[in-house]
Amino acid sequence: MRNIKLTLEYDGSGFCGWQFQPAQRSVQGEVETALQQLTRETIRTTAAGRTDAGVHALGQVINFHTASAHALNVFVKGGNALLPPDVRILDAAEVDEHFSARYSATSRHYFYRISNRPRAIARHYCWYLPLQLDLSAMQQAVKVLRGEIDFESFCQAGSGLDHFRCNVVHAEWHQEQDELVFDICANRFVHNMVRILAGTCVEIGRGALPADAMSSILEARDRRAAGRTAPAHGLTLVKVGYPE
Amino acid sequence: MRNIKLTLEYDGSGFCGWQFQPAQRSVQGEVETALQQLTRETIRTTAAGRTDAGVHALGQVINFHTASAHALNVFVKGGNALLPPDVRILDAAEVDEHFSARYSATSRHYFYRISNRPRAIARHYCWYLPLQLDLSAMQQAVKVLRGEIDFESFCQAGSGLDHFRCNVVHAEWHQEQDELVFDICANRFVHNMVRILAGTCVEIGRGALPADAMSSILEARDRRAAGRTAPAHGLTLVKVGYPE
Repeated sequence: MRNIKLTLEYDGSGFCGWQFQPAQRSVQGEVETALQQLTRETIRTTAAGRTDAGVHALGQVINFHTASAHALNVFVKGGNALLPPDVRILDAAEVDEHFSARYSATSRHYFYRISNRPRAIARHYCWYLPLQLDLSAMQQAVKVLRGEIDFESFCQAGSGLDHFRCNVVHAEWHQEQDELVFDICANRFVHNMVRILAGTCVEIGRGALPADAMSSILEARDRRAAGRTAPAHGLTLVKVGYPE
Repeated sequence: MRNIKLTLEYDGSGFCGWQFQPAQRSVQGEVETALQQLTRETIRTTAAGRTDAGVHALGQVINFHTASAHALNVFVKGGNALLPPDVRILDAAEVDEHFSARYSATSRHYFYRISNRPRAIARHYCWYLPLQLDLSAMQQAVKVLRGEIDFESFCQAGSGLDHFRCNVVHAEWHQEQDELVFDICANRFVHNMVRILAGTCVEIGRGALPADAMSSILEARDRRAAGRTAPAHGLTLVKVGYPE
């Protein structure tokens, strides 16, 4: 059996999320249907990040096993011909049998976008907040997010995880034209972590919490200490890293 | 009567274009309906650029006359509350009675976007061409587009215009990540001009026409001398200029 790794872009607006769910439109469902038509096999895919409904991906990575002898380019072009326009295969590679898009990944990189003006064109890709946010306070707030940290306060309650430690490679806010962009990369993320971090930074940016609140929120290890969960459509999975 | 100028952003994907057409969804129709609800008057708007179906705007400018005493901010916030999410009012200003969004405009600025990789997220905002285009040939080709030029070869046949002269302020191609962007500003544009220019530049970029073909196409004054009309969804009206 060959092990094939695909890189995907998708617009999460029209999906119930990555994960297959009966009677709903999932990215996994669309991709597996296309791959089954291409290979005439039952295909089960594994994704690096199981994105929620409305969350986008510019560089989701998945893998699947197949006996198909198709050239890699056939998975890209044939897959794209069979897929709906809101999911695109950007790349295909053959990887060793032990590679798992999920378990081999060493980093996940997300953007969370906030717009402080109304948007028509990018309305599905950023959270519109009609507020003047203090960018430097938000930049200050995320400086403590570096290295191995327990993110229980930033995990949706009832996740059933055995631990909440994530190793953050970088976390910073920057401005891109009319948008504030939260750029965070870590080995793993607990459930809704980026969205709860973004929502908490907004509380800091609008002055409802002080810029140094982040440390005490982390220490609380309690979801109720953090801010609201920012909406899904501002979030994009940008890239997944693997060992060389 | 007051004369109000609005700046609009819209996603052209869901519209038959700017202009009102019975039984179709037009930007003008949506905007006039919202303004009529706000003012309880019959409102007729004039736009700087009557964009076609599928064409987007980041900075369309319109004006209308009203007896309403609403503060300018009410036109922005109230209008946006009444408009569908694919049209946003970015700004409102009061202008003198002689101002016309169309006839007072001194420049229109458009972007045409081409992507050389498949796209999911930006699929409605760029033309995907699975070709390697020669950017420097395209950059060379548009260098002759400067100053007062007759664009009959780049005007859709049957336009009924009395002349085809446009004064081009700038016209250049540049690369933005995975996109080639045609950036053109002129006092006016004849019908489909940016899309026919973009389609002709693609012929040059893929080597079907030489980089110096533009001059002889202009001299022909014949639509058949130019390339195909590029699809509408790659085009965005970015900005409209007025005298100080």
